[in-house]
Amino acid sequence: MTKQEQPAPIGRPVPITRDDITPGMWSYKHTFRHGQCDPAGIVYTPEFFNVFNHAVEDWFCNHLGINYYDVLGARRIGLGYVNASATFFTPCMMGDEVEIFVTISKIGGKSYQLCLHAMKGDNEALRGYFTTVITCLEKHRPTEMPDDIREAMKKYKAGT
Amino acid sequence: MTKQEQPAPIGRPVPITRDDITPGMWSYKHTFRHGQCDPAGIVYTPEFFNVFNHAVEDWFCNHLGINYYDVLGARRIGLGYVNASATFFTPCMMGDEVEIFVTISKIGGKSYQLCLHAMKGDNEALRGYFTTVITCLEKHRPTEMPDDIREAMKKYKAGT
Amino acid sequence: MTKQEQPAPIGRPVPITRDDITPGMWSYKHTFRHGQCDPAGIVYTPEFFNVFNHAVEDWFCNHLGINYYDVLGARRIGLGYVNASATFFTPCMMGDEVEIFVTISKIGGKSYQLCLHAMKGDNEALRGYFTTVITCLEKHRPTEMPDDIREAMKKYKAGT
Amino acid sequence: MTKQEQPAPIGRPVPITRDDITPGMWSYKHTFRHGQCDPAGIVYTPEFFNVFNHAVEDWFCNHLGINYYDVLGARRIGLGYVNASATFFTPCMMGDEVEIFVTISKIGGKSYQLCLHAMKGDNEALRGYFTTVITCLEKHRPTEMPDDIREAMKKYKAGT
Repeated sequence: MTKQEQPAPIGRPVPITRDDITPGMWSYKHTFRHGQCDPAGIVYTPEFFNVFNHAVEDWFCNHLGINYYDVLGARRIGLGYVNASATFFTPCMMGDEVEIFVTISKIGGKSYQLCLHAMKGDNEALRGYFTTVITCLEKHRPTEMPDDIREAMKKYKAGT
Repeated sequence: MTKQEQPAPIGRPVPITRDDITPGMWSYKHTFRHGQCDPAGIVYTPEFFNVFNHAVEDWFCNHLGINYYDVLGARRIGLGYVNASATFFTPCMMGDEVEIFVTISKIGGKSYQLCLHAMKGDNEALRGYFTTVITCLEKHRPTEMPDDIREAMKKYKAGT
Repeated sequence: MTKQEQPAPIGRPVPITRDDITPGMWSYKHTFRHGQCDPAGIVYTPEFFNVFNHAVEDWFCNHLGINYYDVLGARRIGLGYVNASATFFTPCMMGDEVEIFVTISKIGGKSYQLCLHAMKGDNEALRGYFTTVITCLEKHRPTEMPDDIREAMKKYKAGT
Repeated sequence: MTKQEQPAPIGRPVPITRDDITPGMWSYKHTFRHGQCDPAGIVYTPEFFNVFNHAVEDWFCNHLGINYYDVLGARRIGLGYVNASATFFTPCMMGDEVEIFVTISKIGGKSYQLCLHAMKGDNEALRGYFTTVITCLEKHRPTEMPDDIREAMKKYKAGT
């Protein structure tokens, strides 16, 4: 195994509870559907990443006031990930509802990092981390975060 | 932000090249399809996790000699993730082919960790890390890795 | 081309408008997400079938009063399709919202047929037809529709 | 129920067997994966439409000699469906392999209709019908089928 193949050192985080949620945190509710679950009755892992993305899209559109679809479409700005990861604490089954709380870990010049807490009842079932780099979709190169997105994120971060 | 919300410290790995691949590493080829790509023409992130899972399933069935579907089905053994992450180096577009090389980072008593290198041509386009805990699907509790899986993984690891 | 290969004779239906919706029809709203759309910015066809299924699941759980997930899970009753089809009138793009109205075309002894109208604004964007056969998931054989499902469907059909 | 809501009259076709396959028919093999199957262990219906699309993409690229991804991408030509339907004869489970045979039912001026037979062993497990209208992706309007696609399809149809 070469040095480059070494796994990233990932500490196992401790799940949060409802008491750790602050009033300013926006959340998105999702019920896991029939087609998202595998023959063991458990949600298929890639579907968690799918639902996390739905949460981020909805957060942009319905809380930050930024139309996510215009960003990717008419504005030709990419919000692709350079890193996406999730840690799973308890399994989610068909019909389970989660409430996903969005927090911003970091706002950089051309990037931002989100941490998403998916709560099942009072306990965190899984957590996602997403590092996004803003890109120009014409050149596929990193570009400065647009002012409207930066302002909305700074305001959100200050309130959580 | 509470201490628990701190993102896991993830160092940014350096992409490997074809020269870093050793002869014993098994690989799985995949062409990214129309439906896996987004309006920017780029593969939608959850689809990478989906394809990584296909690679692992195929590696079990066609190289390790363990029927992945029997494990989950008749044998009622879960191979769920406690952690799944991916780092993206270069975007993949509709029609691009990747070759995914499987390496084993660690074999534990009730778990194993895989590192998957998705090569586009001679360069790594993205890398996935997956930590699997073996569970009993009746009780949803961790259980010892079955002997046939352990032996097959040890043999594979020794040869890569 | 053998006789068996002949396509089913499918007449092209005329899209309905809001005026054709009756007050008793239950509906399900969905916004098409980033990951459901293809490089042309248009919803990828299989995703329509996915969303139609979400509508049916939600209709069972939140309107008929039948827990769809219990039916498939604890009750071991399958609600699989013997036929699924959709006709597309106008394309749906990333960010578009549809409202899907559920109607029952037929209630049989061991089957039912649904017709789903996906409205974009005042006009039908697409329509789905689904013929479901009730099966025993132990034997994978057709079985009589359970009384609670039959009663709920008859009541719904009478009111639409 | 208005007249427009009447379901399309769909005759139930008879499944074909291997004997009905002619030598000129191109086929695509697929193994149903873990994530394509539901808690009953059966393939989730929308995944069949997904796999049918993979078969069509591969048929274009690897048999007709038309790069499907260039058509949608650089050439800005849409191959969207006006109708998609499938009839299911026997269930497919996790790990099952199907071989999908492509036949052309009709070649029109701005459209074509495919019939796809998914064989599990010697018997047809399901069948799909897809009517595609060629569109200009700038204007989202029907346009004449490009000559290279028409010629390739005519040649294929003549040989099956």
